[in-house]
Amino acid sequence: EHPYVNGKIENHDIDIVPCYKIEKIEQMKSSVDRTPLHTKFVLENMSEKQKDDTRILKKFMKLINVYGSEFKIMGFSGYLCELLILYYGSFENVIKEASKWRFKQKIVFGKIEKDFSDPLIIIDPVDSSRNAASCVSLQKFSEFIYYSRKFLKDKKFEEIKTEYKKSEGTELIVLNFNTDLIEDLLFPQLRKTRDFIKGYLEKNDFRIYRSKVFNSGILFELEVFELPKMKIHRGPFVYDEKNCENFIEKHNKVFITGDRLCTEVERKFRTAKECIEFLIKKREGFGKDLKKVECFITDDEIKELYD
Amino acid sequence: EHPYVNGKIENHDIDIVPCYKIEKIEQMKSSVDRTPLHTKFVLENMSEKQKDDTRILKKFMKLINVYGSEFKIMGFSGYLCELLILYYGSFENVIKEASKWRFKQKIVFGKIEKDFSDPLIIIDPVDSSRNAASCVSLQKFSEFIYYSRKFLKDKKFEEIKTEYKKSEGTELIVLNFNTDLIEDLLFPQLRKTRDFIKGYLEKNDFRIYRSKVFNSGILFELEVFELPKMKIHRGPFVYDEKNCENFIEKHNKVFITGDRLCTEVERKFRTAKECIEFLIKKREGFGKDLKKVECFITDDEIKELYD
Repeated sequence: EHPYVNGKIENHDIDIVPCYKIEKIEQMKSSVDRTPLHTKFVLENMSEKQKDDTRILKKFMKLINVYGSEFKIMGFSGYLCELLILYYGSFENVIKEASKWRFKQKIVFGKIEKDFSDPLIIIDPVDSSRNAASCVSLQKFSEFIYYSRKFLKDKKFEEIKTEYKKSEGTELIVLNFNTDLIEDLLFPQLRKTRDFIKGYLEKNDFRIYRSKVFNSGILFELEVFELPKMKIHRGPFVYDEKNCENFIEKHNKVFITGDRLCTEVERKFRTAKECIEFLIKKREGFGKDLKKVECFITDDEIKELYD
Repeated sequence: EHPYVNGKIENHDIDIVPCYKIEKIEQMKSSVDRTPLHTKFVLENMSEKQKDDTRILKKFMKLINVYGSEFKIMGFSGYLCELLILYYGSFENVIKEASKWRFKQKIVFGKIEKDFSDPLIIIDPVDSSRNAASCVSLQKFSEFIYYSRKFLKDKKFEEIKTEYKKSEGTELIVLNFNTDLIEDLLFPQLRKTRDFIKGYLEKNDFRIYRSKVFNSGILFELEVFELPKMKIHRGPFVYDEKNCENFIEKHNKVFITGDRLCTEVERKFRTAKECIEFLIKKREGFGKDLKKVECFITDDEIKELYD
C-alpha cells in the first residue's frame, strides 16, 4: 500500500513505516495511520501484570503455531493478543474463554457498526468499522480453540511439530519453486496455485488425499493417481438427430446408455503426475510471480515438512 | 399371478393360459382376460399386407435385440408391434415415425384417461386406462429410435452383436450364479443385486466403468479398483467439546482441518474384489433367490458376452 524501510539494529529486524499523525480515526489517510492509535489504546489501558500475560499468550500461540498475521500463517497478530488480554483480563481467562468459542465468535469494544462473516470478529476499539481479527483463518481459529482446551486439561506448554508423514499406498508429488519472493507475496500465490491444480486434478478424475503449501512449494498426496486409458464420454440424447449425426461422425464406436449416445475417448492424462507436468509446462493457473520462476517436481518420500 | 400349463407341440414351446371369457374390459378379473380382446381387436382391424409388415417389424426388432416384453429384454411385445403397424399403417411408416420419437412419446387409440411417465406410452385400444408399452425400458426405446434412423439411412437389416470388450487398464470382476431360475424371475433379481453392489462399491470409494447383467451373472468393469490403506475420517466440529473428547479418546492421532477434527482410519476394503467377496459371503443386498445359490467370482478376461 505504501513504501517503508527495512533494516537491522543489533541483530533485530527493523521496519520503519512512515504514517500520517492523526488524532481521530476519521482523519485516516492510510491504514498504517491507525497503528499509533492502537499503541496509545493499549498503553493507556493495560496493567503491568497484563503486559506479562500478553507475553505468555504470545509464547503459547507461537508454540502451537497460530501466532502471526502474515499471509504465511494467517493467525493472531500481536495487537490481537493485546486486545484478548484486555478484554478477558488475564492469560488464564483468555484460554478459558477461547476453549468455549463458537464460529463467528464476537468480541466487541464499544459497538458493532458492520456485519462480518469471519470466524473470529474482534471489533477494533480505535475503529469500530473494522474487524481486527479478519486475517485469522478458520484453521488457526480452530487450532487455538483446540489447544486452549488441551492446555486447560494438561496445564503444560507443548510445542506442536507438524511433521508430514505420507500415508501407505498414496502417491506423493511435490512442486518446488526456485524463488526468493517475500512470504507475504509468496503464500497467497502458492495457495491460489494449489487450489487451481487441485481442481484440475479432480476434473481429470484423480483424487487428492491431502495437500499442503510450504516455504518452497506445494505438496500433493494422491488417493487416486493412475487411471485406465479410456473414459466414457456421454454424448447427445438419442432424440437429437442432428447432434447424434455429428457425434457418430466424430467417434467411430458409439453405444447407447439409457437415452444417450456414448463413446469411449482416450484420457488426456493417465497419471496425476502427467497432469501436473502439463500444467507446469503451460504454467496454467499459477500465481503471477510463480509463472516466471523455475519449477520442478520431486516425488520421493519426504520425511519431514515444517510450515 | 395365476397358474398355466407349459409344454411342447412339434418342437414349439407352448403355454396354455386359462382366463375368464369376457365381453367388456370392465368385467376383467385377471390381467390375462384382456388377451382375447387384444386378439379380437387386431384381427378385426389388420389387413393382409399389415400382417406381413408386422412380421417384418418383429424380425427387425429381433435383429436389433429390442423384441420381447420379458424381464430379460424389457423390449417390445408382439402385441405392441401389431399396434404400431395398425397406428402408423405400414412397416416403413413405423420406422419413419420411430426415428422422430421423443421421450414420453404418446400413441393414443381412443382417449387418454391417465397420466403415464414411461418413455413410450401406447394407450391400449381395449383398455384405455393401461399403457401397453409400460414394459419398454428407456434403453430399448432409445435403441429402437437409433436403429430405425440407421435403417432409414442404410436401407438394410443388420444383426447387432453385443460383444463385450474390456477397456485397457480397467479391472474386470464377474459374478457367476449357479442357478436354473426362470429368466423372468432371474433378471429382476440380477439387476437388483447389480444395483446394490454398485452402490456399495461407490460408497467404499471404488468407481465403476461399466456393468452388465447376463444369463448367468453380473459383470463389473472397474475404473478405480485399488485404494490406499487409510482414508481420512472427518469428525466433530472443534466447537463441540463433548464429541471432540469422545473422538480424541477413540482415535489416537487427531488433526484439525478447517474447523473439524479429523483422523486417518483403515479402509474396510483396499480392493474392489475384497469388497465384492465380502458381500458374497454375507449375501447382503442380493436378490431373494440369489441369496441361496452358489456364487463365485471370475476375473479373467472375457472376450464375448451376449445378452
